[in-house]
Amino acid sequence: MMKSFLPVLMLAGFSALAQSNDEANVRSIYDHALSKGRAYEFLEHLSVKIGPRLSGSPGAAAAVEWSRHVMKDLDFDSVWLQPVMVPHWVRGTKEIGRIVNSRKMGTVDVNVCALGGSVGTGPSGIAAQVVEVKSFDELRHLGGKVQGKIVFFNRPMDPTKINTFVAYSGAVEQRGNGASEAAKHGAIAAIVRSMGSNIEDYPHTGGMRYQPNIPQVPAVAISTKHAELLSKLLKDDPNLQFYLETHCETLEDAPSFNVIGEIKGTDLKDEIIVVGGHLDSWDLAQGAHDDGAGCVQAIEVLRLMKAIGYKPRHTIRAVMFMNEENGLRGGLKYAELAEKNKEKHVAAIESDQGGFTPRGFSMTATEKEKQKLRSWKPLLEQYGLTDFSQEGGGADIGPLGKQGVALIGFLPDSQRYFDYHHSPVDTFDKVNKRELELGAAAMAALTYLIDKYGLK
Amino acid sequence: MMKSFLPVLMLAGFSALAQSNDEANVRSIYDHALSKGRAYEFLEHLSVKIGPRLSGSPGAAAAVEWSRHVMKDLDFDSVWLQPVMVPHWVRGTKEIGRIVNSRKMGTVDVNVCALGGSVGTGPSGIAAQVVEVKSFDELRHLGGKVQGKIVFFNRPMDPTKINTFVAYSGAVEQRGNGASEAAKHGAIAAIVRSMGSNIEDYPHTGGMRYQPNIPQVPAVAISTKHAELLSKLLKDDPNLQFYLETHCETLEDAPSFNVIGEIKGTDLKDEIIVVGGHLDSWDLAQGAHDDGAGCVQAIEVLRLMKAIGYKPRHTIRAVMFMNEENGLRGGLKYAELAEKNKEKHVAAIESDQGGFTPRGFSMTATEKEKQKLRSWKPLLEQYGLTDFSQEGGGADIGPLGKQGVALIGFLPDSQRYFDYHHSPVDTFDKVNKRELELGAAAMAALTYLIDKYGLK
Repeated sequence: MMKSFLPVLMLAGFSALAQSNDEANVRSIYDHALSKGRAYEFLEHLSVKIGPRLSGSPGAAAAVEWSRHVMKDLDFDSVWLQPVMVPHWVRGTKEIGRIVNSRKMGTVDVNVCALGGSVGTGPSGIAAQVVEVKSFDELRHLGGKVQGKIVFFNRPMDPTKINTFVAYSGAVEQRGNGASEAAKHGAIAAIVRSMGSNIEDYPHTGGMRYQPNIPQVPAVAISTKHAELLSKLLKDDPNLQFYLETHCETLEDAPSFNVIGEIKGTDLKDEIIVVGGHLDSWDLAQGAHDDGAGCVQAIEVLRLMKAIGYKPRHTIRAVMFMNEENGLRGGLKYAELAEKNKEKHVAAIESDQGGFTPRGFSMTATEKEKQKLRSWKPLLEQYGLTDFSQEGGGADIGPLGKQGVALIGFLPDSQRYFDYHHSPVDTFDKVNKRELELGAAAMAALTYLIDKYGLK
Repeated sequence: MMKSFLPVLMLAGFSALAQSNDEANVRSIYDHALSKGRAYEFLEHLSVKIGPRLSGSPGAAAAVEWSRHVMKDLDFDSVWLQPVMVPHWVRGTKEIGRIVNSRKMGTVDVNVCALGGSVGTGPSGIAAQVVEVKSFDELRHLGGKVQGKIVFFNRPMDPTKINTFVAYSGAVEQRGNGASEAAKHGAIAAIVRSMGSNIEDYPHTGGMRYQPNIPQVPAVAISTKHAELLSKLLKDDPNLQFYLETHCETLEDAPSFNVIGEIKGTDLKDEIIVVGGHLDSWDLAQGAHDDGAGCVQAIEVLRLMKAIGYKPRHTIRAVMFMNEENGLRGGLKYAELAEKNKEKHVAAIESDQGGFTPRGFSMTATEKEKQKLRSWKPLLEQYGLTDFSQEGGGADIGPLGKQGVALIGFLPDSQRYFDYHHSPVDTFDKVNKRELELGAAAMAALTYLIDKYGLK
């Protein structure tokens, strides 16, 4: 009997040692991130010095150069650019939105912004009656009644959803498809209530698509505050006119880049773990939370590995994807080249839900991989990482999914994200230093565990 | 065999029904809080219209009147004031802190503020050399070397602590006891590094105490940024002089009140559940997070009960305690009267860690009561409430502990709290509407469960 216990005891001893090493290494990652972290300083530069960086813009080019330099200066083993052609949409001069001759308030300027990818009205603008709908169903029932008019999509994000991304998913089809749905019934433009959690003065932009063989009509977002006003005035005066003037257009595709830095692995150097965010941002703001935070966190993961003296077994790559916001060309290109070059990716972790307090990780992977991730919860929950239940990864890493790569999404607290998202107030001052650093540390801790134990 | 299964099945059936009722009621609390909540609007009034409300100040008196009116207007069953005498400390005209004739920078004005309860220097101020220490131990070793000098306590909050309250606990003795510890060795004043998580321009005030039979010397907080500067200059020039001028003084105790509103219970109306926060705040800011948030959340708990049509079995009381910041007289008076009037309290829940995203509840109670609380985790964790492991309640409800009352602390995310705490930037704009509402809903959900099932 005694003998048969021996291997079990030895195993237990080894296991406890391994665990205490992991405890110490994860602790070391957090200590370093919170006391000597550089993510916040990096983000200040990217947000404040560089600022807006929509694909094809000078800001995007500056962000590419800057992130390449940062990773070179950090002495990563390799840093390179991965060329990719990107859509090039420009806003032009500022939009005009105006409620004209309403019975109660006369003429009122309202805050609108063109949606990304929209055609413009041109300098002569358009003026028409407005029909408010809450859903595509309601629009279909109206049918020809919207002919020659502007359709106003006014379904709010549902405030009772605890996770604001769920509320966003329930409303964002209006932004993405509203213009084409309206045009199918003869409408000449679409006004979409901003995707924001609260009543605010400023509009939130974001991507929209035109369906094939449907007339392309201009689409704008209106601030939630003015959406409420417009709705109220329409109840009283359904014939009021709305004047809309936008100057946006889509130019020729432009050359740009994904920016990649890596630390070479030791015994598993041909197997890659990606950590990433997207470098492009909408043109209205600094893109501090979306997704400057994700980019600097990805860089910080590699920097932390080096700072604590950890030599990863796998090759760890920080990828700053280009063009998540209006095309996903960077994510597609990265996956295309990974396949072409027969690179083996073990996992890809994306941070694209803002630089807020970490709550956990989502995962799109096999059940076995999910189990492995969840087995680390006892080690991670003391750092506030408790949610490992959700499905999900990230837009940019999504295309790697076809190659069987485990996709992991960093999950920060969601409550404040849609106050800032795609709007002029997504600025550096909205990011809390500790929250950002904790996110970088959480991603580094998970990268460490995947590197050490794999996901199989 | 079949027969013996019956009671089990019935029990299971009942249990499932009870649970589904609870699910529905908790959902209803959250739906209401997030779509028709009033906590944010209440907090705007308390923070912006009333503003600073240190015990004994006109602001405190206005806050008493306002909260009484709000609860009356909400038609709670009873609303009353509970008289209590409070300390009355006043800051006087703005303080001056100045590094004089430093070798490198000459004379530099630095941002300081008197600590609450401190004596002032008077208009002639004091000027002396500065001795920096990181701990009371270090001070003791220096002993007489600080005679006639100013002791500068410069131990930062430890940034590597994940919970910022742990970091605060590790540093706050410098603020609370630094002046007396310094005076024991003949120092003539104390400068304390602000209790803040980051490097900032503004000082954080807070309470300090004098030990008996020790000379009372002036004590100020210095901004973390200027603490760093002073430390740097001292290294180069240990003989530099510091000029300090403060005008604060303690007046006669002043009359004030706890403000109480309640909904009468049905079958257990003589048993009370308290939800509370403290109405007083430091004089430098609006006291939005500390603790306007807790007050409006307590009011909102009772309002939500009524709004969803729930008739509590126990009497539910919202208590706005007076004087948490510099005396705790309100909490002491409440417990004294509860005992005198032989009131039976089942539980007391306090919110005094800011209006941030909820993470859980702490508890100082019997093991059985803790188990009961934790048994509700499966119902509450979908709302982000996952941490039920910590010991703790709240300062104001603390005195009820002696009567065997279960003490519960609402636990929001701690990362941003010490950016604002006791400083001029603890303002309404730092509070996120959804985060505040989720806190109120979390407290209401827990109150509902305690009301329905008790804690025994």
